[in-house]
Amino acid sequence: MTDIATRYTAAQTIARDAGALALRYFQSFDTLNITSKSHQDFVSEADRNVETLVRAAIKTQFPDDAVVGEEDDPTPGTSGFTWVIDPIDGTTNFIHGIPQWCVAIAIVHNAQTVAGVIHDPVHDECTHAMRGHPAFCNENPIRTLTGRTLTNGSLGVGFSGRTRDSGAVITLIDDLTKQGGVFWRNGSGALSLAYVAQGKLLGYVEEHMNAWDCLAGQLIIQCAGGIIEDQDADHMITHGGRVVTATTETFAQVAALANAAYGNGSN
Amino acid sequence: MTDIATRYTAAQTIARDAGALALRYFQSFDTLNITSKSHQDFVSEADRNVETLVRAAIKTQFPDDAVVGEEDDPTPGTSGFTWVIDPIDGTTNFIHGIPQWCVAIAIVHNAQTVAGVIHDPVHDECTHAMRGHPAFCNENPIRTLTGRTLTNGSLGVGFSGRTRDSGAVITLIDDLTKQGGVFWRNGSGALSLAYVAQGKLLGYVEEHMNAWDCLAGQLIIQCAGGIIEDQDADHMITHGGRVVTATTETFAQVAALANAAYGNGSN
Repeated sequence: MTDIATRYTAAQTIARDAGALALRYFQSFDTLNITSKSHQDFVSEADRNVETLVRAAIKTQFPDDAVVGEEDDPTPGTSGFTWVIDPIDGTTNFIHGIPQWCVAIAIVHNAQTVAGVIHDPVHDECTHAMRGHPAFCNENPIRTLTGRTLTNGSLGVGFSGRTRDSGAVITLIDDLTKQGGVFWRNGSGALSLAYVAQGKLLGYVEEHMNAWDCLAGQLIIQCAGGIIEDQDADHMITHGGRVVTATTETFAQVAALANAAYGNGSN
Repeated sequence: MTDIATRYTAAQTIARDAGALALRYFQSFDTLNITSKSHQDFVSEADRNVETLVRAAIKTQFPDDAVVGEEDDPTPGTSGFTWVIDPIDGTTNFIHGIPQWCVAIAIVHNAQTVAGVIHDPVHDECTHAMRGHPAFCNENPIRTLTGRTLTNGSLGVGFSGRTRDSGAVITLIDDLTKQGGVFWRNGSGALSLAYVAQGKLLGYVEEHMNAWDCLAGQLIIQCAGGIIEDQDADHMITHGGRVVTATTETFAQVAALANAAYGNGSN
């Protein structure tokens, strides 16, 4: 196997292992009678331990690779490969028992995402792709939706407290609904991107996402036949940026909505 | 058992049976390689057969009860009890393979909802309550969230193509996000109401819902310690109406948001 293929295979196993650990925490919430404070501690422990599992697995198998994630400081590397990880994307859902969260892992090389894995352990759906190859959910090939207009499906719309004000997302939803479209927001950007790749949503847009939330999903959508606004992955790792993804037939309209709401192609 | 308790128990069994049938359809989507047209036929068949199952079970056990549902014409009754049913709430999610949909059943007597069941078969969560008694998810007592402000959780926001224009939902989301809140929309109003009762969301608001989408959830939220804007259930069956629900501590704020967006208490 190539260096990329080896890492792609390892990323799927690591995402599944991390998901299994996170799922044990998620399912034990129901059986624990815990106060709000200890609940928060418990969630922090889950987040921390899942990230530790992911980092340890990478360190063992690819000791020269760099690692960037939401929780800890970046680990530098010398191999030219960077793992960009979000142990639990959709933490608010995770905390509240809503089964809409996932583990996200992207592998970056030469400023490009070369492999991506988004694992939803609640529903045992591991969505993954390697650049230049088809996308899969578990063992099954997946495709973005076809033959749809913007009024014939839902558009995922991201929003986070990080954005300085909410004007842009309001403009976007306003324009979308005036065109007869329907917005959808489940609180997990990475899982929403997997849904686009799987043909569950028409597209997904967000004014600003961090690399660990979006790089894996963006690649998987491309490999599943969708269109994304492409970015330099290294730039995304440093700064994050806006994310625009959709089916081939709706991308132009979705990009126009994003331009009107977020400004033209800004990162 | 009283007349109400008998029906409450039966409604749980019927919702579980209906959910099991719907789930078989939902899970078989993955394994079927079907065109868009035959997919639509398949979904219509699922919807129709689940509703038929529910209506047949009610007719067998409670032949004198009335039945009102989304799909078929109302069945009149003489017992004073009306079953208000939605065999699959969240049809767009169901069609697209998104695991966010449910079966909803409410039982109305003397213009009041006296029992409600919302069953999510994907996650095996049957949320239910009888008026004047505690609410449960499966066998476990549930409570709405406590000790939260509007900025410390997500507010479910409903939106459907039925509403003539999208101005109201835009105003609501705009006001909510300006106050530091976060909107959430999964495309299944009934499941979102169950999430409020289970302590997964702070509340849920929608400008206009039909009775089969909201009566069960509204009752369950009340029984779980939350607050709802109460309505005459018979009026809701005929006309539908706006739905405002939240935790005790955020209800006043959520109602103010709804009044500003939808107009004051209009149905």
